[in-house]
Amino acid sequence: MKALFVEGKISLRDVPNPEPGSGEALIRVIRAGICGTDRQILKGYAGFHGILGHEFVGQVVQCDQSQWLGKRVVGEINLSCGHCEWCRRGLGRHCAHRAVMGIINHPGAFAEFATLPVRNLHEVPESLPDELAVFTEPLAAAAEILEQMTVPAGARAAVLGAGRLGLLVAQVLRHAGAEVTVIGRNPKKLELARSLGLKALASAAALHPRSFPLVVEATSSPQGLETALRIIEPRGTVVMKSTFHQPAQFDTAKLVVDEITLLGSRCGSFQAGLELLKSGAVQVSPLISATFPLEEGVEAFQFLEKPDCMKVLLANPV
Amino acid sequence: MKALFVEGKISLRDVPNPEPGSGEALIRVIRAGICGTDRQILKGYAGFHGILGHEFVGQVVQCDQSQWLGKRVVGEINLSCGHCEWCRRGLGRHCAHRAVMGIINHPGAFAEFATLPVRNLHEVPESLPDELAVFTEPLAAAAEILEQMTVPAGARAAVLGAGRLGLLVAQVLRHAGAEVTVIGRNPKKLELARSLGLKALASAAALHPRSFPLVVEATSSPQGLETALRIIEPRGTVVMKSTFHQPAQFDTAKLVVDEITLLGSRCGSFQAGLELLKSGAVQVSPLISATFPLEEGVEAFQFLEKPDCMKVLLANPV
Repeated sequence: MKALFVEGKISLRDVPNPEPGSGEALIRVIRAGICGTDRQILKGYAGFHGILGHEFVGQVVQCDQSQWLGKRVVGEINLSCGHCEWCRRGLGRHCAHRAVMGIINHPGAFAEFATLPVRNLHEVPESLPDELAVFTEPLAAAAEILEQMTVPAGARAAVLGAGRLGLLVAQVLRHAGAEVTVIGRNPKKLELARSLGLKALASAAALHPRSFPLVVEATSSPQGLETALRIIEPRGTVVMKSTFHQPAQFDTAKLVVDEITLLGSRCGSFQAGLELLKSGAVQVSPLISATFPLEEGVEAFQFLEKPDCMKVLLANPV
Repeated sequence: MKALFVEGKISLRDVPNPEPGSGEALIRVIRAGICGTDRQILKGYAGFHGILGHEFVGQVVQCDQSQWLGKRVVGEINLSCGHCEWCRRGLGRHCAHRAVMGIINHPGAFAEFATLPVRNLHEVPESLPDELAVFTEPLAAAAEILEQMTVPAGARAAVLGAGRLGLLVAQVLRHAGAEVTVIGRNPKKLELARSLGLKALASAAALHPRSFPLVVEATSSPQGLETALRIIEPRGTVVMKSTFHQPAQFDTAKLVVDEITLLGSRCGSFQAGLELLKSGAVQVSPLISATFPLEEGVEAFQFLEKPDCMKVLLANPV
């Protein structure tokens, strides 16, 4: 099969079809989404070599559990051991022995076929088209914030970054009742934010210091943290959402004196993601900048570098 | 009166006695404690010039509210405006317009006399000797952690730093039901920790990565954060307790991937501090390394640099 392989750089390769093991499903990938983490992996994050990709929707074509055959599915990306303390607590996402699809020790979804344990799969409701369902993983990650903290109704929230992740997070927080301001630099992305009904600013410079109880850092850059710590209120929470392949510096005295919480936030519940898509609470179609056939995956990654680009999808022929 | 004045360096000066304003008390300082923050101020932290010191117990000798006259008191160090949103929320400790005794725009307690608004004062119970009462402020700061988060009974907690702050925090967490391990470098301080019934280790090297749900950073050094992030469990909380005059670097990806909470923690409730002292839940006498008369305050600061030194008190003659 064709697959987008990363080994220092990314290339399209012909690789053997994967073989599902016991309890695993072989999934024909229908759509896959390129995420900021994929770009970070190309820069060296996680030291991953192999088939990239962890956002997808597909169809089960082979499985020893026949009830899954033919089902349209999305899949949780963490392959946990199922036995350790974290798995027993229902937090397999933090299992120390886990593999992570397209990130750690498990081939990703930028391919014609992929495998996952059936316990990772969620059936996609019929009403949800592929182009929306492929957003389940990033939307679940955005909604993870709500599992980690209470967002009081009417709370003023700033989302730093008007990219793919930022506009998902902003919509999730708005749905939770927050009064959201998105801060980005790209005029087209800010326009898109406004078209989604969000308040959007081109700079945080005019925002008062210590003026937001909740700030989400979704810029994928260490400077985002600096801005976040400037505008966060005493006793406020800065949610760190983007992973980047550089250490960040911060003023610990500011954190201590203002009693600020820095909250790391990663993957979330797929059920929550699917619900948000089904209900229409979060709009994702306007975020799709382009869809490339898998064969043009390398070009898709080049396209992603355009400043205006939001979500790029990869498609396999039916 | 005599006072320890900081202006670049510290010196004993003769300064005019302070005059209490309306609603303020003139307090004869009986004992004062030197804190890590005082040392940081000498290194430039907060840019403070003036009389140092914010931990004290004293006696009200002049006040327009006569019920305070003669009372033995400790005093909250944040002088808030009383009108802003933070003050209205009962969080004057975060008032943007606040002065802070001995730190920001208000003369400190390393002097014969000091002033504070009476609303900052707490009467000291008769049963509590001066040598214990002087620990109210740092103990309140240690207990602040319990106001900010829930420490589940039996939770494994690591306290990095076996100094003054570390051993107060460790005792507070133990009293809250945690199973506490103190990590320090100085053998005498570790011995002291053990004499207080605490588990104490000379290095974090033997501790498993990701093995504590709660880690308190009380080392006053940026390296403490690195260790904390190594031993903290996924979804765990690292409490940042010490302020230091340097930025710290950290791996944001680790924070995000393991969904760690970094929680800044500063001043706390004096009532909580007084209760912990009164009940004997926290032992502070063993932490006193030496008591110097105020006149020898400069020598007291020199003494503080000895590696074994814990709390140094300053005393005024009766």
